Amino acid sequence: MRPIKRLIQLDEALRLVYEKVNPVDKTELLPIGESIGRIAARDVVSRVSVPPFARSAMDGYAARAVDTYGASRSRPTRLRVVEAIYAGTVAKKSLGKGQSSEIATGAMLPKGADAVVMVEDTELDGGDVIVNTPVHPGQNVSEKGEDIIPGTKVLSKEEILNPSKIGALAAIGNRKVVVYAKPLVGIVPTGNEIAPLGSKLAPGQVYDINSYTLAGVVSSNGGIPKKLGIVDDTLKALTDVVKQGSDCDILVFSGGSSVGERDVMLDVLEKEGDVVFHGIAVKPGKPTLFGTIGKQLVFGMPGYPTACLSNAYIMLRPVLRRMARLPENTPVSVRARMSKRVVSTTGRTQFLTVRVNAGVAHPAFKESGAITSMAFADGYVIIPADVDLLEKEEEVVVYLL
Amino acid sequence: MRPIKRLIQLDEALRLVYEKVNPVDKTELLPIGESIGRIAARDVVSRVSVPPFARSAMDGYAARAVDTYGASRSRPTRLRVVEAIYAGTVAKKSLGKGQSSEIATGAMLPKGADAVVMVEDTELDGGDVIVNTPVHPGQNVSEKGEDIIPGTKVLSKEEILNPSKIGALAAIGNRKVVVYAKPLVGIVPTGNEIAPLGSKLAPGQVYDINSYTLAGVVSSNGGIPKKLGIVDDTLKALTDVVKQGSDCDILVFSGGSSVGERDVMLDVLEKEGDVVFHGIAVKPGKPTLFGTIGKQLVFGMPGYPTACLSNAYIMLRPVLRRMARLPENTPVSVRARMSKRVVSTTGRTQFLTVRVNAGVAHPAFKESGAITSMAFADGYVIIPADVDLLEKEEEVVVYLL
Repeated sequence: MRPIKRLIQLDEALRLVYEKVNPVDKTELLPIGESIGRIAARDVVSRVSVPPFARSAMDGYAARAVDTYGASRSRPTRLRVVEAIYAGTVAKKSLGKGQSSEIATGAMLPKGADAVVMVEDTELDGGDVIVNTPVHPGQNVSEKGEDIIPGTKVLSKEEILNPSKIGALAAIGNRKVVVYAKPLVGIVPTGNEIAPLGSKLAPGQVYDINSYTLAGVVSSNGGIPKKLGIVDDTLKALTDVVKQGSDCDILVFSGGSSVGERDVMLDVLEKEGDVVFHGIAVKPGKPTLFGTIGKQLVFGMPGYPTACLSNAYIMLRPVLRRMARLPENTPVSVRARMSKRVVSTTGRTQFLTVRVNAGVAHPAFKESGAITSMAFADGYVIIPADVDLLEKEEEVVVYLL
Repeated sequence: MRPIKRLIQLDEALRLVYEKVNPVDKTELLPIGESIGRIAARDVVSRVSVPPFARSAMDGYAARAVDTYGASRSRPTRLRVVEAIYAGTVAKKSLGKGQSSEIATGAMLPKGADAVVMVEDTELDGGDVIVNTPVHPGQNVSEKGEDIIPGTKVLSKEEILNPSKIGALAAIGNRKVVVYAKPLVGIVPTGNEIAPLGSKLAPGQVYDINSYTLAGVVSSNGGIPKKLGIVDDTLKALTDVVKQGSDCDILVFSGGSSVGERDVMLDVLEKEGDVVFHGIAVKPGKPTLFGTIGKQLVFGMPGYPTACLSNAYIMLRPVLRRMARLPENTPVSVRARMSKRVVSTTGRTQFLTVRVNAGVAHPAFKESGAITSMAFADGYVIIPADVDLLEKEEEVVVYLL
């Protein structure tokens, strides 16, 4: 058996990992309706004007502004209404002196008109409209190109496609958008004891949990999980699966990076790539291996479900988001008081899962092998490496899961 | 033309809308790997024990605790190693007095053993292991059912399926989970002036923006957008599309709820269902219609893209999340100082879009018809109805888009 010789601190581990992250360069062309939350891979510059014509910003009467000057409630101006213009139709008549057209919001202004009098400032009188308020040229009109002119950059590379940016693409008539591909994350639970869901457990076996928890973290942080199957922790099987997952941006193994005689993931990574570190001063999650195979990042997570998932939150999630060009995760946090005293190991950063009830944080951690240490928790408290004690009643920040 | 007679305040509008919200009752059965972020529709109770057997929590030596009592570095205990037990395999031998088995983390304890000595507390000496530290019964052992026992509720109805809860389902061997269906939201842009993407614009036409912005809000807040196509704002066309969208939990129209003569959505809703309100004291987004057709909620949003999207954020999003049983949206906010004085209309809640640069909020709002009012903004400032002025340099909270 090979004890882990030197643990590195979490911040050092993260620094080393971040150094190796290359954001994904691969791009894909998507219909804009499928691009929500994706990252633009190109600037998009408009070739057209939006709106493509001067249009009314109000329901009212299109007119020549000059004809309304001096109008007031006591001395209104009277204009002849020559037609009604609805949105989506084109005026048949151009306006001369003393003329107006009823016009709907969004409808194209008729020739001759340079302003719109709001319906609220008018009264109808037979075929005439009585105007009580003057308008200036351009009033209640959206000029051609007021929103977007040709040459306007409507989307910048690396921006997230939120609803309004997708709307801007629609406005200029773009049906598709080039976005960065999602990082592909190969997931490989290892160990003879791991059985796939749906199988009958043989004595000594447990069900595969980590494939599902890891896939959940991956798919909710901008990645695509690719399950590469459960693999024996033999040199041959692990080497084969590394080759099989060569198209992945990240490979995540679980199990096989502890200190057991049969833990051969370290050997595989030494042979196929480069080991960056093996062992982090965190609890749970100490026996964690990290390295690279070419540009591919490789994590060897502990096999125990809560240790594996905890590490996925603290390391895989930020790595994946950087690779996907997503902003950092911003966990929701609440303040609570500890229900009891908790002793932590000095020198190791502890992620203590807790249940929160009426402002009180109750430790939920059983052991790193118990998925309910996390599944029955509301969140976790981070106990820094240089803190060895949380007192009962001490106020803590709980990051919700 | 029909002016909107009475505007209601936003909080009153939201209260009226929330009164009509019924969370979706329809359920669906999903593979657990596709259930991330979904809402459990049933309690899930385990029928099995996890782990299904007592297993070692450490790499080390399984032993009878009683044999180690009194062991110390100066007076170690010597045990005979009878076999090595790897995870996923079953011990061939049971342990008698003075015997031990090398055991890997996660491996099933052999008969006779009741504790594990950590490898760090031992030395090998030929076929014997030298134990330097005593262990008590149960030490470094995960007992059968320590994580989950039969009868444990591993998932409760209405809980969100996060990675750890999905992990708990995997732990008990469940491949599928019953979740609530996502609300189906029918989206209908109306108006002759709206042209689908990909078409050539006729004079007076603009591209359909609202289908895309609304679909983005729907899909990122737990709903399924269903585009029902662009519809003329005629009584017949709108009535037909209402029938066509009868399977939707929510129908969202855009355009056709202003005060124009041809705005017939109000007529349709009065005929087919019940109008709850027409007109909200918000800017942008005043001409908003809300009502019900049976259990279905119906929104008539303004046609102008920024007004429509602003309303989608302030009304559709919270409604949809309640219907989907998701927690309230928690927008990320930053504090900033206004770059200039902004005058607001007293009596209307204003959503002022801004760009934020080096702690300064620059108004980005052009007009509600301009999608760039929002697409080129970083977030928005809410100016309450009873505030009519933001001073230059005044500190504001900006909710990021």
